[in-house]
Amino acid sequence: MTAGEDPASAGGRAGTLRELGERGLIERVRRRLGPPGPGVVVGIGDDAAVVAVGDRTLLLTTDTLIEGVHFRRQTATLRDIGAKALAVNVSDIAAMGGEPRWALLALALPPDLPVTDVDELYAGLGETAAQQGVSLIGGDTCAAPAGLVLGITVVGEVQGAPLRRTGARPGDVLLVTGTLGGAAAGLAVLEGGMGSAPPDAVDAVCRAHRRPTPRVAEGRAILASGVATAMIDLSDGLATDLGHLLEESGVGAEVRLADLPIAPATRAVARARGVDVVHWAVSGGEDYELLFTADGPHAAALARDVSAKTGTPVRIVGEIGPATRGLRFLDATGRRHAVRAGFDHFA
Amino acid sequence: MTAGEDPASAGGRAGTLRELGERGLIERVRRRLGPPGPGVVVGIGDDAAVVAVGDRTLLLTTDTLIEGVHFRRQTATLRDIGAKALAVNVSDIAAMGGEPRWALLALALPPDLPVTDVDELYAGLGETAAQQGVSLIGGDTCAAPAGLVLGITVVGEVQGAPLRRTGARPGDVLLVTGTLGGAAAGLAVLEGGMGSAPPDAVDAVCRAHRRPTPRVAEGRAILASGVATAMIDLSDGLATDLGHLLEESGVGAEVRLADLPIAPATRAVARARGVDVVHWAVSGGEDYELLFTADGPHAAALARDVSAKTGTPVRIVGEIGPATRGLRFLDATGRRHAVRAGFDHFA
Repeated sequence: MTAGEDPASAGGRAGTLRELGERGLIERVRRRLGPPGPGVVVGIGDDAAVVAVGDRTLLLTTDTLIEGVHFRRQTATLRDIGAKALAVNVSDIAAMGGEPRWALLALALPPDLPVTDVDELYAGLGETAAQQGVSLIGGDTCAAPAGLVLGITVVGEVQGAPLRRTGARPGDVLLVTGTLGGAAAGLAVLEGGMGSAPPDAVDAVCRAHRRPTPRVAEGRAILASGVATAMIDLSDGLATDLGHLLEESGVGAEVRLADLPIAPATRAVARARGVDVVHWAVSGGEDYELLFTADGPHAAALARDVSAKTGTPVRIVGEIGPATRGLRFLDATGRRHAVRAGFDHFA
Repeated sequence: MTAGEDPASAGGRAGTLRELGERGLIERVRRRLGPPGPGVVVGIGDDAAVVAVGDRTLLLTTDTLIEGVHFRRQTATLRDIGAKALAVNVSDIAAMGGEPRWALLALALPPDLPVTDVDELYAGLGETAAQQGVSLIGGDTCAAPAGLVLGITVVGEVQGAPLRRTGARPGDVLLVTGTLGGAAAGLAVLEGGMGSAPPDAVDAVCRAHRRPTPRVAEGRAILASGVATAMIDLSDGLATDLGHLLEESGVGAEVRLADLPIAPATRAVARARGVDVVHWAVSGGEDYELLFTADGPHAAALARDVSAKTGTPVRIVGEIGPATRGLRFLDATGRRHAVRAGFDHFA
């Protein structure tokens, strides 16, 4: 869950969820639930909840994926759907610097689904589980006449205090792992066809969309460095998720669009479709890369260190400033670039 | 999750989920996932999964409740739906002798839902959370065009080894907390009207259906006694859930129908509708009472002790025998009574 939204409007008697918006709803819920109870280190408002169990610190995250909302069987196999559903939950553990341990699956399945399809779904879940060292320990199954529903909960463990969304300070530097826009490019191809894009590039972006890799080792290295100040994973797109981090930290930011890491395959697909690739990198979702901030003087060394340890490129893409500056995207000439508003589930 | 089903048919290439059945699916999944990983004390196949975290033992359970499958807004308020959704998950913690600690909520909500309805949903969740000492620590919200979906995960803690479904032995006695059939009577009234049933009785059974009370204190006392051997909560009805316990323990049982605890309100509603109340007590679901087994010579003292500590009646309703005897329901004259097959989500 994430927070934000003008308290006045969130507290008011907005008519429908569509009017209140996702962030208004979350803020409303957070205010109603009051302070967290015993053992709760971090409640609602971050990538995962954090609880203390004896001398251990656990991370807990849950997501429900609904057919027709989060995935469509026309553009993804059940194996891909299973693998991705678990991966995106693991990403929430990575985003706090933790390691995933156990997963619970609550599945609602159409009764006329072939059993071989169910086998494929579990095979995909099992692939991610094996890659990530996660044990599938339980769950629930029931019938779902209206389509597949996957409810996934992942429990992770973190060494020491987890990285939150709240610690960014003016003067910090903004960094990102991997590359951006690939999942959006893949979705565009899957929904609209490959057109004249090169087959290799098409394969790469489709894979980015279907099989995102949660950045667990990267998240652990970033936390262990001691110089990172805040972190979030990129599920709804850079503009939206950076917005959450800024709001939670009470700061602003400048992002240099020319510095955003974009894979050659993503650029090739964008060219073939006549799309501005920066739009996918900034507003496209589901890259599941880590966006984080670090103490300015240590940031370049941190980027090199994490990259050396994990093999994943890490790029400095901007700076944190005061909240009054808001969130600005700057083009190569230093001019402000208008960015489309982020994704809202209820809009 | 629960197990069972002929391994030959579960392992075969059954066509659809409807043909494989719920228990066939669960057994198939359990076989595919293989042995549990590090820290896993109990994986798939009980009321909750059990993991070791340092010197603590945690219980984890998750359920997804879907509008039109698990509830209908015509017969329950959103406040009731929220309260019950959390209560039924807490019941899975109670069924292993644990105490609930934290809950995660993944909600999918129709965008045109009035915000006041969402407030009611959270108010109901908050009521159960407060009653049960549970902290709501996080979750996720998204839009659900096809209706409400509530994904709930509850984490609990247990002192020592939890009570499982696997420990019942021939010679043990079968016990149940509270009364049976009330929730089924309530559902019958809510779906079919109250007819000539007395208003007080109608109120009582509707409340039993809408607001089940998880038996947490009872479960803890049963575990702490040291003489109970197996336990399960009654979500799908006595016949079905006892069937699960017997299969997991590898034993059979005889149940004396005349000894089943049935509330006067439930009897009154059954009379008014011309229904055999025993049918509701045996095959009706959602009572969320605890069904457990105990060493024969200690069972009567255990029943008195749990009842004295919690104020909840505890009744001896049958005996555990060898697996070859199967599950038999006996009427007041000692004759076998045919019982309708249990609930299967995919049938």
